[in-house]
Amino acid sequence: MFIATGEQYRQSLSGRNSEIYAGGERIGDVTSHPLTIPGVNAIALLYDLAQEPDLDALMQARSHVTGAQVHRYGHLPQNSDDLLKKIQAARQAAEISPISGLASWGVDLLSALSIVTHTMQQELGTSYYDRFLQYLQQYQAQNLWSAVGVTDVKGDRRLRPSEQDDPDLYVHVVERTNAGIVVRGAKAHTTGAPVAHEIIVIPTRALRASDQDYAVAFAVSPDTPGLKMICRAGASAQAQSLDAPVSGRFSLVETLTIFEDVFVPWERVFMCGEWPYAGRLVELFATYHRHTYAGAKAAMLDLLIGAAALAAEFNGVAAARHIQDKLADLMQASALIYAAGVAAALESTTAGPGTAVPDPVQTNAGKNFSGVKFYEALRVVHDIAGGLVVTMPGEADYRSPVTRPYLEKYLKGAKGIATLDRLKLFKFIRDLTASDFGGMWMVESLHGGGSLEAEKIAMRAHYPLAHAKGLVQALAHLTPG
Amino acid sequence: MFIATGEQYRQSLSGRNSEIYAGGERIGDVTSHPLTIPGVNAIALLYDLAQEPDLDALMQARSHVTGAQVHRYGHLPQNSDDLLKKIQAARQAAEISPISGLASWGVDLLSALSIVTHTMQQELGTSYYDRFLQYLQQYQAQNLWSAVGVTDVKGDRRLRPSEQDDPDLYVHVVERTNAGIVVRGAKAHTTGAPVAHEIIVIPTRALRASDQDYAVAFAVSPDTPGLKMICRAGASAQAQSLDAPVSGRFSLVETLTIFEDVFVPWERVFMCGEWPYAGRLVELFATYHRHTYAGAKAAMLDLLIGAAALAAEFNGVAAARHIQDKLADLMQASALIYAAGVAAALESTTAGPGTAVPDPVQTNAGKNFSGVKFYEALRVVHDIAGGLVVTMPGEADYRSPVTRPYLEKYLKGAKGIATLDRLKLFKFIRDLTASDFGGMWMVESLHGGGSLEAEKIAMRAHYPLAHAKGLVQALAHLTPG
Amino acid sequence: MFIATGEQYRQSLSGRNSEIYAGGERIGDVTSHPLTIPGVNAIALLYDLAQEPDLDALMQARSHVTGAQVHRYGHLPQNSDDLLKKIQAARQAAEISPISGLASWGVDLLSALSIVTHTMQQELGTSYYDRFLQYLQQYQAQNLWSAVGVTDVKGDRRLRPSEQDDPDLYVHVVERTNAGIVVRGAKAHTTGAPVAHEIIVIPTRALRASDQDYAVAFAVSPDTPGLKMICRAGASAQAQSLDAPVSGRFSLVETLTIFEDVFVPWERVFMCGEWPYAGRLVELFATYHRHTYAGAKAAMLDLLIGAAALAAEFNGVAAARHIQDKLADLMQASALIYAAGVAAALESTTAGPGTAVPDPVQTNAGKNFSGVKFYEALRVVHDIAGGLVVTMPGEADYRSPVTRPYLEKYLKGAKGIATLDRLKLFKFIRDLTASDFGGMWMVESLHGGGSLEAEKIAMRAHYPLAHAKGLVQALAHLTPG
Amino acid sequence: MFIATGEQYRQSLSGRNSEIYAGGERIGDVTSHPLTIPGVNAIALLYDLAQEPDLDALMQARSHVTGAQVHRYGHLPQNSDDLLKKIQAARQAAEISPISGLASWGVDLLSALSIVTHTMQQELGTSYYDRFLQYLQQYQAQNLWSAVGVTDVKGDRRLRPSEQDDPDLYVHVVERTNAGIVVRGAKAHTTGAPVAHEIIVIPTRALRASDQDYAVAFAVSPDTPGLKMICRAGASAQAQSLDAPVSGRFSLVETLTIFEDVFVPWERVFMCGEWPYAGRLVELFATYHRHTYAGAKAAMLDLLIGAAALAAEFNGVAAARHIQDKLADLMQASALIYAAGVAAALESTTAGPGTAVPDPVQTNAGKNFSGVKFYEALRVVHDIAGGLVVTMPGEADYRSPVTRPYLEKYLKGAKGIATLDRLKLFKFIRDLTASDFGGMWMVESLHGGGSLEAEKIAMRAHYPLAHAKGLVQALAHLTPG
Repeated sequence: MFIATGEQYRQSLSGRNSEIYAGGERIGDVTSHPLTIPGVNAIALLYDLAQEPDLDALMQARSHVTGAQVHRYGHLPQNSDDLLKKIQAARQAAEISPISGLASWGVDLLSALSIVTHTMQQELGTSYYDRFLQYLQQYQAQNLWSAVGVTDVKGDRRLRPSEQDDPDLYVHVVERTNAGIVVRGAKAHTTGAPVAHEIIVIPTRALRASDQDYAVAFAVSPDTPGLKMICRAGASAQAQSLDAPVSGRFSLVETLTIFEDVFVPWERVFMCGEWPYAGRLVELFATYHRHTYAGAKAAMLDLLIGAAALAAEFNGVAAARHIQDKLADLMQASALIYAAGVAAALESTTAGPGTAVPDPVQTNAGKNFSGVKFYEALRVVHDIAGGLVVTMPGEADYRSPVTRPYLEKYLKGAKGIATLDRLKLFKFIRDLTASDFGGMWMVESLHGGGSLEAEKIAMRAHYPLAHAKGLVQALAHLTPG
Repeated sequence: MFIATGEQYRQSLSGRNSEIYAGGERIGDVTSHPLTIPGVNAIALLYDLAQEPDLDALMQARSHVTGAQVHRYGHLPQNSDDLLKKIQAARQAAEISPISGLASWGVDLLSALSIVTHTMQQELGTSYYDRFLQYLQQYQAQNLWSAVGVTDVKGDRRLRPSEQDDPDLYVHVVERTNAGIVVRGAKAHTTGAPVAHEIIVIPTRALRASDQDYAVAFAVSPDTPGLKMICRAGASAQAQSLDAPVSGRFSLVETLTIFEDVFVPWERVFMCGEWPYAGRLVELFATYHRHTYAGAKAAMLDLLIGAAALAAEFNGVAAARHIQDKLADLMQASALIYAAGVAAALESTTAGPGTAVPDPVQTNAGKNFSGVKFYEALRVVHDIAGGLVVTMPGEADYRSPVTRPYLEKYLKGAKGIATLDRLKLFKFIRDLTASDFGGMWMVESLHGGGSLEAEKIAMRAHYPLAHAKGLVQALAHLTPG
Repeated sequence: MFIATGEQYRQSLSGRNSEIYAGGERIGDVTSHPLTIPGVNAIALLYDLAQEPDLDALMQARSHVTGAQVHRYGHLPQNSDDLLKKIQAARQAAEISPISGLASWGVDLLSALSIVTHTMQQELGTSYYDRFLQYLQQYQAQNLWSAVGVTDVKGDRRLRPSEQDDPDLYVHVVERTNAGIVVRGAKAHTTGAPVAHEIIVIPTRALRASDQDYAVAFAVSPDTPGLKMICRAGASAQAQSLDAPVSGRFSLVETLTIFEDVFVPWERVFMCGEWPYAGRLVELFATYHRHTYAGAKAAMLDLLIGAAALAAEFNGVAAARHIQDKLADLMQASALIYAAGVAAALESTTAGPGTAVPDPVQTNAGKNFSGVKFYEALRVVHDIAGGLVVTMPGEADYRSPVTRPYLEKYLKGAKGIATLDRLKLFKFIRDLTASDFGGMWMVESLHGGGSLEAEKIAMRAHYPLAHAKGLVQALAHLTPG
Repeated sequence: MFIATGEQYRQSLSGRNSEIYAGGERIGDVTSHPLTIPGVNAIALLYDLAQEPDLDALMQARSHVTGAQVHRYGHLPQNSDDLLKKIQAARQAAEISPISGLASWGVDLLSALSIVTHTMQQELGTSYYDRFLQYLQQYQAQNLWSAVGVTDVKGDRRLRPSEQDDPDLYVHVVERTNAGIVVRGAKAHTTGAPVAHEIIVIPTRALRASDQDYAVAFAVSPDTPGLKMICRAGASAQAQSLDAPVSGRFSLVETLTIFEDVFVPWERVFMCGEWPYAGRLVELFATYHRHTYAGAKAAMLDLLIGAAALAAEFNGVAAARHIQDKLADLMQASALIYAAGVAAALESTTAGPGTAVPDPVQTNAGKNFSGVKFYEALRVVHDIAGGLVVTMPGEADYRSPVTRPYLEKYLKGAKGIATLDRLKLFKFIRDLTASDFGGMWMVESLHGGGSLEAEKIAMRAHYPLAHAKGLVQALAHLTPG
């Protein structure tokens, strides 16, 4: 069945029997549990946006495999325009729900797999790419959405996978049978796993021969036996809450995802032992996913700009020169974050079977910049909005007949602004920037898609340093070298 | 009665009948309500620290009025050494509970009042300083701790107090009688008001003749009739919680404090109509209080450094060069924040009756720097610790027999580190930096004691610009001017 | 005659009789005077690059007016690709000579004029656009290169042009005749004027009705009677100098250009009194020219990266982690500066007769970022290279038989690196970053194309703030407004 | 003879026969050569300032050895007050001549030697401290000023001294006789050597047993046979020059100082083979010298603030909000740089024979901060002053009767400001920030006293990390460790 709408997506989740834990207890249907509803909403939004008449050209694409219209987040980019549209789709979605904009990890991993399985098939004579294409056709035929398992729990980070005291600290193959493989281990930060149709798993780093069993890539359904998800919900569902206007509706569900001897049939295995290809696979995934940030984080900056500008207006200080100056700083950040994504798309190359890859220097430059700038942006927003962001009374105080009159009288802002609007705005800012949910976003801005350090390494690896040195050698008349 | 210990402080609060609201409902005894317990603890700690044998010289001082030993946060600074000890006391307390370190606002305001009441008495022939001294003697005789009401709710910030549609948007005198005055209005951000012995109120800004009724300073008890506090608790009490190790014990209670025609007897009124002195009073308070940040924020940086260093160790990456580099950045921030306070103390002047005032350029330079750096510090800590700060399962998952084994196995870090310790550490970091409590601290770092802009204005006002221009005029042989 | 090569350009300058002063004395032929030779070289390079077989597609374009191949810096951009190629051409040229890359101001002003003359012709019924097209055809027929006079000397900057004590502090019309106009005033920073074929002049700011006479745009040859140029040469020609490898060959010649009652025939007048169009004209010019920085400044960063990387190698410390880290910072800066230009090109609009205009938010975001980052980049380069950048002995010491042996012995760096190469490299870095020439580049990075503040104003003017506020209004359920 | 005045200092230099080269040729009397005059002036100023009646208490001190009044830059600090006065003296001198403020390296090295020779004498039974005291007495009896040789030329920086292909790339002992030692090698960046009374030499780094011959410390006169200095003058003397108002008078003379088998008698040798003490010696020197920056760099910031403020006034834009904002940034930088020095003095410890040592965390935090901030400060000054800093015509143009009228007319600034003053001011800014001299200051701000990296290493080495971790362990209830 082709899942087109958010409602169809919700239905596709119900009746599943995944092993999900929250607060130490197993939870049932994700579509009705308060901790997972915001996560369901975030993905449902992605489907619904693709149905909007003026957004379909952006949020959908024609599959290069089947020729059918699929969701943008299920389409492998074939050229610069596809890459550009992906970040525009991310920006569009993130304007409503930041996490929805970022939720391209499935297609990002599929894009990486298309290249590496193709290369392995060409170089090693395996059938990985054929297998992958088969999987992709089914995936696109149902218009699925997936979570990814990339980051292993890692144990002692000084040690390689095979050197750990406990061999299970990186996901690895423990058995190979005619029908498939058995895997064991755990992946951290598997965002959205409980509300995904598929969980796609790859190694988290480059590997050596001694780590051969850790070179494994595969896809499973969240309700596969042996698979357990320990949830850490970013927020709890709250209908139309004044105090949590974003997080009460849209959030992410993080899980520690445990593979306790999970069986995966061969047709869902995309790498098994080919350790020299592990590094390239995870690097490609990271490149694709970091590229998404160019759209999603620009949108998040836009939300912060809008909120800060409104706060200044509601306080009656919009014309203040220092506030105008600070807004310009945020605008610049939004522009540069997005620009890096545009440039990366425009300077893309193709690899493997013709999948387009964004320029890695631009991609990593932008992602790194957005991670660092996000904290500065929070400061600017707090600076502009003022201390009431955290000290303002909340919804319960406003609803109480005892305290509401005091709030109405004393929390009045600039002329013509309803006190309730001011209250709502400050709670919006708090929700997004100075709360449990805001804390999650801060850390996410740094570590989503990989750390600042990983991005710097990638920049150095791909920057044309020999060219730059050559320019200096020529201009300074140095011995060429 | 002289309140010496935390226990005596707790007793001093019980049996009060203050009008306090939280979540729209009135709450009773602050020493037993979960939302106010962390606030009580924070102040009790201040008393208890002063009883520790090796800290008494720091946390206590000999009153220049009575000659008796009083709490450092009740002693008016008489010289550079007193100012230095205040920031050292703040650092000492903030190493355990950040909010406790900052809670010097009472003495900061008393210091400012000592100067301005003295000046008014000298210049206008009023008896404000005599009255103030009387009040101070009683205050020190009981070794009290106070909250302050400084920031008015302000309404439309383009308008001066008397220009607002509603005259009550700044606290003002509505009646004068033989016995005293009646005041109306509301103060925002009155941190600690429900757990204070006294609330001391001053104007929030410089005033003009038309704002005369707003030039009012006074002290009241929190259970004075007509006074209402609408709470916004920073956290909820949790005994020994793994998830909230700091905020579950020590936090602040913010209130919107409403003065609904509150009567204040003359002996507690320290300014009433003398509008030309309002600006100086609030500026002095701000200078004193911003100075406290030099100690308290250095300690907070130290906590972040300790946490980041431990996180790196627990992850097994303490030796990584980029982590060492980032730790040095935090160390530098801690050193410079504190240094500004030391220099401000050393370069103090005296004013009014001989109260020592820290150098305003140094004080504001340091406070402003600490506000901006705090966001960078959060980034560095998150950068070092990694995504688990927000995605790691929590206490309930750890306590559940179903999920605990998975946590024990898969959240293991570097060799020799207990998984539970790792869990506790990451929750500590989250509590302090990426949570509702952390969000409060972010905003507080900017707006506590005044905004970044206010600090820049103060720097410009006190920097010896004529001297700097004179140097250039001499060196460049310009026409002197 | 069509000027194709650098040599032809040189010939086109000789025999002119411009009134040029340097060091208080009049100088003759610019192609042979040491102070102007580097300026001639910089433009000759632009012509020569366009003749290189593999660069012609980039450095040339087909004129949309004449259909002939002209220099990229003489072609009005018709679409995103033209805009993109312009910044690529700038990057290409700036890799050899930074000033050459930036020297697009002529075409940038022509592009702006094409739009504003077209608008004036449409809205006012003037023939400015026809006149402009005629001028452009002749310009392209000869493949000219021009300087621009934009920044007036301004006098007291608080006052508008017509309010100044001396009416001549902004260029203005002092007489109108049948044959043309007479103009008076002075323009600062007219880079390249002595070595240009044309000087094109426009107002420096938005004007009011009272400033009508200041609303004047026109083109003149540098040897027009009454026109005087007071030079401030960036460097002096030095053939193959070790001490000044860049500035000895390529530099800019700045002039204060004085219009002492200069006559301009009507066919060269493009605005005369139409004050409402002045602001748009200068803003468009600024947008075009700031866009060029995306290419030229990225190249300059690349030169700094190459130089820093070589310095680290020559010192034997290329592998040091902190150096790798700092190189990545420079790479990121280069990538983001260029990305802003790419995005601005891609998101261009067309105006007037169909001239393509880069996106102003992206353009200004990138230019502002490059200005600020340039100083950081200098710090990083100096940090990596070390104190020898400024303390190393120079060419004369190296050439002297007395001191050379000591230099050879003691300035030896890493194994395998010739001491002379190390000397050359450090002098290259000094030339570009820590010298009179380097000082010029620092200031240029800020003020070329307009100041940081002007860029922020432009960002705010064009950022879609209403859209951003609308997003927040929707998400936080605010009253729409 | 006791050298008290600048004039006496000049006399003390004349008649010397040092082997000094500049531009590949040997130069004679340093007091009359244009390249060394600014260096002589810079030190003469130090002597003269100490004679000014209101500065003598600051610029002089009572020797703890002889009890006589000596120059502050010849007095070993005995307590916090001495350390504080040293940075105040540095600030005082640097307000007139930046290099003079920094020129405390001699006393900084003597302070370090007092401690390490004392320790060696105590621990090893040598007589180094006795010898040092003898030397110090003579030094103070004549009130000398010295240069230091610390940074070896280093060759391949991956290799330790004894591992280099050429053993002479670090200064080392090549012969020991009854009378003394013979040393060979070269020191870079020996600022002021040609105009010093003494050159004191120590190892540049921690050493191992295999580097024993490199563990050598001694003092020599600049005209010792075998000692050669290859100059790199920062500027050339120009009396009252408009174009170079600072550098034409005061600058530094850098040399590459070569020890070609220089004989040093034992009474001037302070370390010879005791390799375990080399690291401590150079670290102490660095700490002392970096401490001086707190005063000297604060003064330099003050000069930049004064210049920027005047430039804004001269342009008529002093009231602009963004300029006020940027000035506050510079004021904050000046305040924090100085504060770090004050705190380091206040928190000093004593070592060896009782010499006071500034706190190394504060010292290094401040120096590192000043190095980074200096580049930002240049940007702010250029931003405020505008492009004329580098494009304004100069002295020759102003003196010429042909061009002067144009300058007078068109370079007029705000009302009431003489054009010549404006010219002088902009040339002052250029001289200090955007010239050969300015380039030297940029690099000096980073590498003087050691690199940014070295400062970070020192911060990490001395920051009480165990204490910070202990705080977290207690608060988060971690297993103590």
